[in-house]
This record gives sequence, C-alpha cells and structure tokens, in this order.
Amino acid sequence: MSLGIVILAAGKGTRMKSALPKVLHPLAGKPLLGHVLDTATSLKPDTIVVVYGHGGTTVQATFPDPNIQWVEQTQLLGTGHAVQQALPKLQTVDQILILYGDVPLINTDTLQQLIDRSITNTALGLITIKFADPTGYGRIVRDAVGNILRNVEQKDASIDELTINEINTGIMTAKRQHLGSWLNRINNNNAQGEFYLTDCIGLAVADGIKIISAKPKCTEEILGVNDRIQLGTLERYVQKKYAVELMHNGVTIMDPTRFDLRGTLQTGKDVSIDVNIIIEGNVVLGDNVSIGPNCLLRNCTIGANTQIYANSIIENSSIAESVRIGPFARIRPGTTIAELVHVGNFVEIKNSHIGIGSKVNHLTYIGDSEIGNAVNIGAGTITCNYDGAYKHKTTIGDNAFIGSNVALVAPVQIGVDATVGAGSVITQDTPDAKLILARSKQQVIEDWQRPKKSSKK
Amino acid sequence: MSLGIVILAAGKGTRMKSALPKVLHPLAGKPLLGHVLDTATSLKPDTIVVVYGHGGTTVQATFPDPNIQWVEQTQLLGTGHAVQQALPKLQTVDQILILYGDVPLINTDTLQQLIDRSITNTALGLITIKFADPTGYGRIVRDAVGNILRNVEQKDASIDELTINEINTGIMTAKRQHLGSWLNRINNNNAQGEFYLTDCIGLAVADGIKIISAKPKCTEEILGVNDRIQLGTLERYVQKKYAVELMHNGVTIMDPTRFDLRGTLQTGKDVSIDVNIIIEGNVVLGDNVSIGPNCLLRNCTIGANTQIYANSIIENSSIAESVRIGPFARIRPGTTIAELVHVGNFVEIKNSHIGIGSKVNHLTYIGDSEIGNAVNIGAGTITCNYDGAYKHKTTIGDNAFIGSNVALVAPVQIGVDATVGAGSVITQDTPDAKLILARSKQQVIEDWQRPKKSSKK
Amino acid sequence: MSLGIVILAAGKGTRMKSALPKVLHPLAGKPLLGHVLDTATSLKPDTIVVVYGHGGTTVQATFPDPNIQWVEQTQLLGTGHAVQQALPKLQTVDQILILYGDVPLINTDTLQQLIDRSITNTALGLITIKFADPTGYGRIVRDAVGNILRNVEQKDASIDELTINEINTGIMTAKRQHLGSWLNRINNNNAQGEFYLTDCIGLAVADGIKIISAKPKCTEEILGVNDRIQLGTLERYVQKKYAVELMHNGVTIMDPTRFDLRGTLQTGKDVSIDVNIIIEGNVVLGDNVSIGPNCLLRNCTIGANTQIYANSIIENSSIAESVRIGPFARIRPGTTIAELVHVGNFVEIKNSHIGIGSKVNHLTYIGDSEIGNAVNIGAGTITCNYDGAYKHKTTIGDNAFIGSNVALVAPVQIGVDATVGAGSVITQDTPDAKLILARSKQQVIEDWQRPKKSSKK
Repeated sequence: MSLGIVILAAGKGTRMKSALPKVLHPLAGKPLLGHVLDTATSLKPDTIVVVYGHGGTTVQATFPDPNIQWVEQTQLLGTGHAVQQALPKLQTVDQILILYGDVPLINTDTLQQLIDRSITNTALGLITIKFADPTGYGRIVRDAVGNILRNVEQKDASIDELTINEINTGIMTAKRQHLGSWLNRINNNNAQGEFYLTDCIGLAVADGIKIISAKPKCTEEILGVNDRIQLGTLERYVQKKYAVELMHNGVTIMDPTRFDLRGTLQTGKDVSIDVNIIIEGNVVLGDNVSIGPNCLLRNCTIGANTQIYANSIIENSSIAESVRIGPFARIRPGTTIAELVHVGNFVEIKNSHIGIGSKVNHLTYIGDSEIGNAVNIGAGTITCNYDGAYKHKTTIGDNAFIGSNVALVAPVQIGVDATVGAGSVITQDTPDAKLILARSKQQVIEDWQRPKKSSKK
Repeated sequence: MSLGIVILAAGKGTRMKSALPKVLHPLAGKPLLGHVLDTATSLKPDTIVVVYGHGGTTVQATFPDPNIQWVEQTQLLGTGHAVQQALPKLQTVDQILILYGDVPLINTDTLQQLIDRSITNTALGLITIKFADPTGYGRIVRDAVGNILRNVEQKDASIDELTINEINTGIMTAKRQHLGSWLNRINNNNAQGEFYLTDCIGLAVADGIKIISAKPKCTEEILGVNDRIQLGTLERYVQKKYAVELMHNGVTIMDPTRFDLRGTLQTGKDVSIDVNIIIEGNVVLGDNVSIGPNCLLRNCTIGANTQIYANSIIENSSIAESVRIGPFARIRPGTTIAELVHVGNFVEIKNSHIGIGSKVNHLTYIGDSEIGNAVNIGAGTITCNYDGAYKHKTTIGDNAFIGSNVALVAPVQIGVDATVGAGSVITQDTPDAKLILARSKQQVIEDWQRPKKSSKK
Repeated sequence: MSLGIVILAAGKGTRMKSALPKVLHPLAGKPLLGHVLDTATSLKPDTIVVVYGHGGTTVQATFPDPNIQWVEQTQLLGTGHAVQQALPKLQTVDQILILYGDVPLINTDTLQQLIDRSITNTALGLITIKFADPTGYGRIVRDAVGNILRNVEQKDASIDELTINEINTGIMTAKRQHLGSWLNRINNNNAQGEFYLTDCIGLAVADGIKIISAKPKCTEEILGVNDRIQLGTLERYVQKKYAVELMHNGVTIMDPTRFDLRGTLQTGKDVSIDVNIIIEGNVVLGDNVSIGPNCLLRNCTIGANTQIYANSIIENSSIAESVRIGPFARIRPGTTIAELVHVGNFVEIKNSHIGIGSKVNHLTYIGDSEIGNAVNIGAGTITCNYDGAYKHKTTIGDNAFIGSNVALVAPVQIGVDATVGAGSVITQDTPDAKLILARSKQQVIEDWQRPKKSSKK
C-alpha cells in the first residue's frame, strides 16, 4: 500500500501582511511548511506533492529536496481544485493524505492512525475536533447514529448546523481512485464560488463509502496560522512543550516560559539553563553544563562541566570540557576552545583555537589565531588580523604571557614561553622564552598645566 | 454643546508607599494622569480641570500644558467636595464629565458614547460594570424595571445591597447646571463622613432626571491603581495589548509577554522583534528591520533592512538603512549612522557621525567624532575626546584605515585615505593617503626572567 | 511541652534524573531541604532529625548545622520504617512532627496551628487537603459524621475510596509515646510491601485517640517535588510570591513574571526594578534605587539614589549613594564604590576601591586598585595587575587624570593631581601634579602603500 501526500501551500496569507510567503514564516526557527514536510516525511510516503501559488519560487528555493514534487496552482479556485492539480503526480500511489502548509503541528502518530484505519476500512478518513466556539470552521454533520454525512462551511451552514461544535480540520485521507472520482464531481455552487475539497465527504456518503474520523491529541495539532497573533500563539505553545520535554528528561530550566529553542538541543545529565536563553540551530550540551541568563547559543557543542555565564553569545563553535566563558563573552564562528580555558568579559574570539588551560579574561579581541596551551592573554590585547585587504594569522606558543594592551600585528608568531610587555605593538615574530618589549621611555613633563574649565563660559 | 472635564487627582495613594504622587507613577512609560489627560484631550473639551491635593506642585510641573486648569483640594472631604472645588472653572461649559487620575485606561469611545447619550437624553450618565466579586465597590441599586435609583457605597450598603454585582465606576457625566444643583445638596452623613459625588444619583432620581449607564469594552478600562500590584497588572495588560496590536499589523514578536513599549512605535513591513525588547520614547523601525533579543531602543529611527543584534542599546540616534549593529553595542545620544555601516561588539559611539559603509567592529569608543565613508576603525581604538576640562572633536577622512589599539587625541584630523598604524597615539593632524606611525622599536630583552610563583607561600 | 521534628529525606528521587540528591536541588536558590529545615527551625523544636538515604554524605555536608541530628535509613522500607529509625534520637521530646525534605513550602503558621491543636486535644494531627483530581495520593476515609477513620493509599484503595478527594499530605504530628506505640504495630501487608507511616491513623482510631486535621493556606504548601517539572512549577510560584510581596511593600517591579530572587532582598522606598532581573544571595537596595533590565545582583549593597543601568552584573560588592553603573558594567567581588562615582559601559572592576566622584566610563579593566576621589580614568585603560605569578596593586591619587588607552603596570602609584598621557605604559611611580608620558614620536611614512585586495583571487 503506497502513500502519497499532498500539502496545500498556495494560500496568499494576506493577514500576515508580509512580503514573505506565509508558509515560510518561521515557527521555532523552522518555516511552517518545513514542519509539515518533516511530519510528511516521517510517514514514509512514496510521493510528496506541494501545491504552491503565492511566492512559489521562494518556497521551492527554501526546500531544495529532490524528493518533493512541486505543482503550481495558478488560479486559487479552492482546496478541491488545488488537490486536483496534484493528482497527475500521484498516479502510482494507492492512498492519498492531504495536509496544509499552514497547519504546522499535526502529529505523525495522529496521522498514522488515521491512515491505518482508513486503509483497513477502505474509508474516507478525517481529522475532526470539537471546539467550544466553532465559529468560522466547517461543521461535521452526522446522522442520528453518529455517521458522518457531510461537512458544511460556516458561510453555507443553516442555523441548526451552526450549533454543531465538531469541526472539520481539512486533514483527510482516502484511496486515490476514490478521491479522483469525487474531485471530478464537486462543483463551485456555494457562497464562496470555490471548489471545496470537503464536498468529497457528501459524495463519499452518496457512494456508500464509509467515513471515519480521528481526533488529534491536542488542539494545537490542527491550528492554522493566518496572522502573526496565531503564529505567536503556536510559537509559545511549541516552546513550552520543548521546555517541558527537556525538564522531563532531567534538565533544570529556571523558567519554561522564558526558554526558546529554534533548532535541536541534545543535553547530558544535570544540565542547568537559566532564564531567557535562546538556542538556535544544533546545540549539544554535555553533563553538568550550566548556561547563565540571557545567553544565545547557535550551532555549538559545549563540553561537560563547562559553565557559560550571563549574557554570552556562542556561534558555530566547539567548546571543550571544564571551560568557563563569560559573562559578556562572544565566541564567533570557527572557534575551538580546549579544556580548562577561561574566557572572560568583553572578549570576542573569532575563527581561532584556544589551547588547554589558556586564559583570555578581559576586553580582548582574538581573531584568526592559534593560541597554545597555558597561555595568558592580558586585558585589552588585540590581534590585528586585518590589513585593510586581507586577514592574517596570529600564532602564540604554549605558556606565553601576553601583557595587557598589547597589539599583535598579524601575520606574527609569539614564541613558546615568551613574555610580551604591556602596551607593546608586536610586528615581528618573537623568540621563545624571552621578554619582548616595544615601549617608550616614561618621562615627566615638568612645566605642563592640565586644561581647566574656565569659570566663565 | 461645550464640554468640561474634571479629573480627580487629589488622592494620597498611601498604598503605593511612595514619595511620588500616585498619579505620577508611570504606566507604559507615561504617568497615570498623563493617560487620563490624553484621553480627556481626545474628547475635545473646552476646559480640563485637574483637582490635585497631595504632591500638587510636582503634579503640575509634570504637565506644563497651559490648557489644563489646576484646582487644589486642600481638605480631602470626598469626591463630591472635590468636584465642587472645580465648578468655578467650568461656568462656561454645558456638560461636565468626571474622570479619575488613577483610572488610566478609560477609553475615548466609551466616554464619547456616554456623553452623546447623556446629552441626547438630558440624563445623568454613569459607567457601570458587573463584577463577579463586587466587594469594596459602590453598588448600583435599580428598581424592578431596571431604572437606576442610587449608588450605595460598600460601607453603607445593606446585606441585600451587598449582593448586587453591578458596580459604579465613578465615571459620570451630567449637565453643569444639574451637577451644580446636586452638589449643593449632598451631605456627609455616611460611614466615612465624606461628601460622595455618587450621592448625586439619588438626587437626580428625586429631581426626575433620567439616569443612563454604559459599559466599558473591557474591565481594565475602569480599573483603578491603588498599589503597585494593581499598577503591575495594568502594565502587563497594556503591554500585551500593544504587542497584539503590532502583531495584528504584521510585526513578528517572538513573545508578546516579553515585550515592553513605553512610548510610541512605528513599524514598516516585516519587522521582527525578538524576546525581551524594551522600546522607550518615540521609535521608528523601517521595513525588514530585525531587533535581536534583550535590546533597548529609546528615541531612535532605524532604517529599512537594518539589523540590531542581541544585547544592544540605542538612544536618541538615527540609524540609516542596511546597517548592522551589535551584539553588545551601545549607541548613545547624538549619533547618526549612515547606510551600510557595521558596528560590532563592545563598541560605544556617542555624539558622532559614521559615514556610509564604515566599520567599527570591536571594543572601540568613538565620541564627538565625524567619521567619513568607507573608514575602517580597528579593534580597541579610542577617541580621546576629553582633556579633563573640555570635549574635543575627532575627524576622520573617507577611506581612512585606523589600526587597532590606536588612541586619537582630539582635537585631531585624520586625512582621507590615511593609514594609522596599530598602537599609535595620534596627537597631530595627519596628511591624506600616508601611513602614520607612533611606535617604539620592538626589542628582545635577553636576560629577563618571568616571575614565578614560589612553591612555598 | 518539647517538640521533635523528623524530616524524611531518604527518597531516591529517580524522576529527577540527577546525580544530585533530590533534596539538594535548589528552589529559589536554596536546596529543597534547606527550606524545610528553615521552617522546622522557626517552630523552635528541641530536636531536628533528618532521615537520609541516597547521597547521604553530600546532604549532610550541605547542612553543617550541629543542631541537626542525622539518621541513615539504609533500607528504604517505607515512611513508617523511616520515622522509626529516628525515634531513638527523640526520647526526650513530648511531641513529634513529621515533615518531608521534598515538600519545601509548608508554612510555619499552618504547622504551629496543627501542633497546638494536637497538643490541646491529645490528638493525632494531619494536614489534609481536597484535590479536584486526587489520583495518586492517599485518601482520607471519614465516618458518617466526619471523623477520620484511616488513610488508604491509591494502590490499596477500593473503587469507592478512590472517589474521595480529601488527600493525606503525610505531614503529621502526635505525642511521641503514641507514635512509638503505633510504629511498633504497623506492618507491610500492602501492595507496595512497605511500612506506611499513615497506617498510624487506623491504629490511633483503634486506640480511641482523636484525629484532627488542618488545611494549608494554599495548595503549593503541600506540593512535593518529584521531577524537574514540579520543581519548575514551585520555582515560578515562589518567584511570583516574592515579587508580589515586594510590590505590596512599595517596590515597582515592571514584570512580576520576569523577576528572580534567589536569596534575600531588602529594599528602601521607591525602588524600581525593570524586567528580567536576577537577585542572588543577600542584596540590599537603598531608597530610590533603580535597576535596569537584565541585571544580575549577587551579595551586594546599593546605596540610595544609585542607578544600575541595563545588562550590568554586580557581585560581592558595596556601592554607595548616587552612583551610576552600566550599562554593560561588571563589578566583581571585593569592590567598594564611593558616592557619585560613574562606571560606564564595558568596564570591569575587581577587588578595588573607587573614590568619591571618580569616573571610569568606557572599556576599562580596574583590578586590585585603590583609586582616589575625583579621578578620571580614560577609555581603554588597563591596570596590569598580574605578572604571571602574583597580583599587584595600583594606587591612583585624588584628582588624577589617566588618559585613554593607558596601561598601568602594577605595582605602581600615580600621584595626586597627576596627568597620564593617552597611550602611555606606566611602569614607575609618578610624581604629583605632573604630566607623565611614555609615548613615541608621531611620524609620517612617505612611500608606504596600503595592501590592496587583488582583483583576481
């Protein structure tokens, strides 16, 4: 039994008031359509067809997966019409599932159960749910013994039908041959003048096909995103869910309502995450890692027992075990930090390696550098890596001591065990184990007067 | 039909436990009384009278608007007495509306409708609301057919009257002549020994004057602030409302419960605002602006396509299009930043202009400076703008390259296309297109030993 | 009447998924068991016995109070067995109260009332509460007139008993002699094969001992912590409670859901606390102190009228009155800052004294220093306090002016009224009231060309 999935993603999304196609707006750091595609993929279908309209080329460019088939719906004539456009790509599948690019949180298990039961019963399968306030949704009309008769849209519903609180989510599965037959027969004689996919329900009943329904595990599974308020609601729902899952797995999160995960997070044992943290991309935190408040971690690995203090930012870098970083540190892409390193406040490190046990504690810029083990970098040290045209490398040997306010003009090498005096500008490579100075003589100017503010201005 | 508005603002606000008069405590960055004055002004009245008591001169000084009339209530004898003090200033108006300096969120539409209906019916108009728990509020007593008979205060209410859940908000409007007549007749024979404004209701009934009531759109409109918990509740209500309005207008706000707007915010299309942002004063964000987490923006304009990264602060400055600022940048008052500029981490800029495409990326202080286009400022550069008495200006020509750790001792001018070597202290103006150095020769000290920690301490 | 308190703290806490014993997990900055011990101590008992099991030595080491008696429960055979292990330490007390190391928020008043009533009635006293969903808790079985008959555990309850929604919290008090007698008689014939402390209830009834119950003031008092989700729930509950108490006392807290107090906070009048603040240890804030957003204060005292701007961190330091600190400042342990000092952005101060009215405004590191009054420290100044082996002291006299980008190589003294020129490296003590320079001559290199990016790469 082969499965084809159609994802309807052609809606204009006018209420988003955005130049970005609606299905590309991010939820937890991933486009809405990306969530649906991931769920679709998890069902192991033979074919996935995305029906696009508005902003189509941008949408395709965002998902360069060759396994996705793209169909353009040039005229927006309704959901039934949209699915019909996709059918030519689905001639080899037995069963079709219809999803929506703006309903991002539908769950794999919910769908798998719906598909399995539909196949077993040769039925049309629907996801339905009861809403206390069903206003605006299509209602599910059942007969006296509970069999589904049809779906009626809000605008076409009678007064009695408007009191029904079981609504149709639009998520549907059926045999390909059934669906094709129904879509050939639906019309647009309704308030909107559109071809409704949901009219298939009445046709199925007329054909004597059984209709089954399944419920999602939670309401959020079937919520659509039509404006940024709905997007924000789902964002907070997802974030709270992520936080609770992590806490369940043994992570301390100081405030699950102030936690944002926009990617994936792997955690060791006894990880502690303070308030207002943002995780982006793929982040791995080892055992006993603690992350202070207001930190931003993006695509990085943090080794066991490492502590990241408040207000630090780490991007595309790898931090080893038992390191201390921050507060107010920024580790930029391409950096590897070895065991036992200390990186302190107002320090920027970019595209560099810091060796075991080295210290870069204060007001320093390290760029394009290879720093050995047990090196001490004094406060205010700057690697001058840019000559106005090219970037150059600074290399510092093990156990070197760089005094404060030193400028290291790259390309330059500092020897093993070397000591560079405070305030020196180093432009030439230095030998091992020597003191290197570039310093003017201190002098007292005897007859100088400091400017004074004139009493009258 | 001319309108006079009386704002009662004489209450002590004891439960605020504050030296600041209650009506001056800020809500969303504006004093409580400021909110009420803005709403009052929006009704286009002929006269606004504020009745002040506690902290009067501070209150007046906060609102130097010559259109406000101020009346001191030296003895706090009740709301009826307070309004009576204001009447002499209102002899030329036909209709009077009474508002409260500590009920900040009453809505213009609600009031306009109340006024219009009161005038049409020559009625006394009241804002009333039903509370599940009316404890503490005056109850609205109606007759069998629903006509309002009187208001009864909690402390004077019978057991039956205490069960009434429609309460009087105190907001009232009436013809001046009616109100004057009633206020002459009220007394202080009640549990509090005060002249209640609300006793006018019973007198109006006795006089055969119709009484109408109107409801606010939401409870928060009529909530008063008596302590900081109530102030906090309204603060969060207002902030959530602002966030939802912005989202409705097409702004992405990552968490509407972590957004603070203490002033006004204008936004272009597709603006994105991350968590924990504070906006103060008047802020304008162009199309496609993105603001990273934990930023504070105060009185500034940010051009289209500009990105403000995490943990940045911008005050009283103007930022052009396609600029990148932060993370950890601070732009202080008087700064203008042109198109395509990059300002990086741990950089402070004050009262300066940065020309098109220039870069100030790391650990730098730029003060009182005029920086040309396409200038590169190296890491750790400092403009020495203060001589202990006066501030001086630094001017840097287009396309200049300032090496790292340079000190520019103002007043000083760096020529167009000039290059200043790393670590230089520049005290004199430099020519165009030359390399300028102030640097000591690097030397190796052969026989020096780095101090070692003695094994015994 | 002497009181003994038994605290059961031997549970494994498997669902915490932690190497740390459950009762040591922090709530509002204090271990769970610490909360219970503080409450126990507030009841002025003669003896406190903690029954420990898992992680026992770590638990003991965390609370080195000699007034606590420790008893190991080597086999986890149930709560009744645990209390029995403690009895030998309690032979001199009249009344015994049983608390739980993982039920941190039980209230002193609730317990005192329970104890008083139990003593007066020679009764067994229980804390019970009604839960809408009692699933998982032991149910309180009462007779037709409301007398408590027994407790039945979820797993041993009949279908009828499962509908009871009054649950037993496990907190219990009784005369020592009664409790000892009952514990000798309980058995482990139940679904869990454990000795239940709660079986004492049935025995008391059989003995004709009266059983009384008391309710906690709020549900959170009796909630236990079994996993990090429950820990997180209590954390937010406690934090909200702290915030509301502070607001009630006249502190403005911009968002009570973004406030974290992990210790104690004393506040003067009109203190204002912006969003996302963390307070740790013991912090004292004087009158009119304002704390900007995203600040972290740990063990510090802040004088009246001092303003701490956004994103600042202050640890183990003392700040005087009318000081301004931040934004982006870090004050590290051992620092005292006198009146009227300004500390600006990207400034780190460690183990130093800053005298009255001095200014350290930009990109500076001050370590191990004694700075006089009215000193101006230029941007980018570094005290070079570390020679690779030892830390040394920098002393700066009153009214000195340190130019920008200066390195002060400690040990070194700068004279009163001295001026140090920008960019100088100062290695020797300087005289009073003189200008001191260590600076190279500025020179123009005529024939130098700045590197250019080759058009082809």
